[in-house]
Amino acid sequence: MTPTLRLYDLAGKDPDRRFSPYCWRIRLALAHKGLPVETIPWRFTEKAEISPSGQGKVPVLVHGERWIHESWAIACYLEDAFPQGPSLFGGESGRALSRHYSDLADGLNAVIIRFVLADIFAQLDPGDQAYFRKTREQRFGMSLEQVVADREARVDGFRASLSPMRATLAVQPFFGGNHPLYADYALFSSFQWARCVSSFALLEASDPLWAWRERLLDAFDGLARSVPAAE
Amino acid sequence: MTPTLRLYDLAGKDPDRRFSPYCWRIRLALAHKGLPVETIPWRFTEKAEISPSGQGKVPVLVHGERWIHESWAIACYLEDAFPQGPSLFGGESGRALSRHYSDLADGLNAVIIRFVLADIFAQLDPGDQAYFRKTREQRFGMSLEQVVADREARVDGFRASLSPMRATLAVQPFFGGNHPLYADYALFSSFQWARCVSSFALLEASDPLWAWRERLLDAFDGLARSVPAAE
Repeated sequence: MTPTLRLYDLAGKDPDRRFSPYCWRIRLALAHKGLPVETIPWRFTEKAEISPSGQGKVPVLVHGERWIHESWAIACYLEDAFPQGPSLFGGESGRALSRHYSDLADGLNAVIIRFVLADIFAQLDPGDQAYFRKTREQRFGMSLEQVVADREARVDGFRASLSPMRATLAVQPFFGGNHPLYADYALFSSFQWARCVSSFALLEASDPLWAWRERLLDAFDGLARSVPAAE
Repeated sequence: MTPTLRLYDLAGKDPDRRFSPYCWRIRLALAHKGLPVETIPWRFTEKAEISPSGQGKVPVLVHGERWIHESWAIACYLEDAFPQGPSLFGGESGRALSRHYSDLADGLNAVIIRFVLADIFAQLDPGDQAYFRKTREQRFGMSLEQVVADREARVDGFRASLSPMRATLAVQPFFGGNHPLYADYALFSSFQWARCVSSFALLEASDPLWAWRERLLDAFDGLARSVPAAE
């Protein structure tokens, strides 16, 4: 018997509103591998619950005695510990090539947060809100509301910056080719995060990226769609 | 006997100053595959020479009766026609994952050109200069000199925009992992282009991207270094 996999998964005040882009990478990676998982809703301030991982951020995957943290490390762990499932990367070169997608998605998150920061706050459990406001306002050097204040003026530039993604999706349905790979989950999760916390329209429905996002929302029996879009 | 491969390769007034980022992708792909090639210096206005390809841009690869154009199509052709050489992509998933690197490099070129456009003009054969000035000034809606005029003010932002590339190269020496793949050649060629036409310092010597560029300048017995940096 393989021990049950458990995933600490960031949640809002609604425990079913899982929204972390880094956790979504792993939710989709687990589904890709066909691995059942018990997800545990976790809040920013529940550091003690994940202290066996040696740090204070999710995703944290627990597999038997092993506590693994950081999305890329978890993806590699799943690929190596469960070689029988479909590959997340498409081989060793594919793994190396996938790494930059993870870094591109991190870069995307650093831009998207300036559109959704104040909306995240509104979704949080009251116990998390003071912590979130304090740490994020320190990081940005301004209030959450000030960070997003000019987002309408920035959204056209943001959409234009996605043209390399659009160019690829004009010739193939997924970054992984005819089916999605971890590269897709990494980039998709940035948009899934925005969708789960904010009603702000980052993408237009006519955008090929929207259609790609829809395909990934449909994947694995609509796993990512199970969190309704924020209103 | 395999027929000799011939590559039409964009050149400046010095026929050895090959500078097209799209041609460099193929020069390096050929070297990766271990394929000897006869390169033919080609100028923008020599459309007739490549007319059998059905269009007017390089790179154009000639293999026996076949004329293949467009860098991604040529790379795929090389991978399929010469399966015995080292793979450019690392398998079929690797090929799908490599496509976005080609599109990322195209996006990089669209930014880099705003730093080097006037310097390209200075490197061109006199017979190309009028054509180049006219077509590019039409495209940009301003003079070549105006396009680059504020480049000093833009370079910090450009360098900052490369942080996802830097993040990947902090954990592995190449985008392809421990050795370069087509993904590396696509991105490298954007910087090689800038290096071949302009003395403007896009990268700082302390940048991990500089060290990666150096590794690729050294590859294949210094193939890319054989064009001296522009002065």
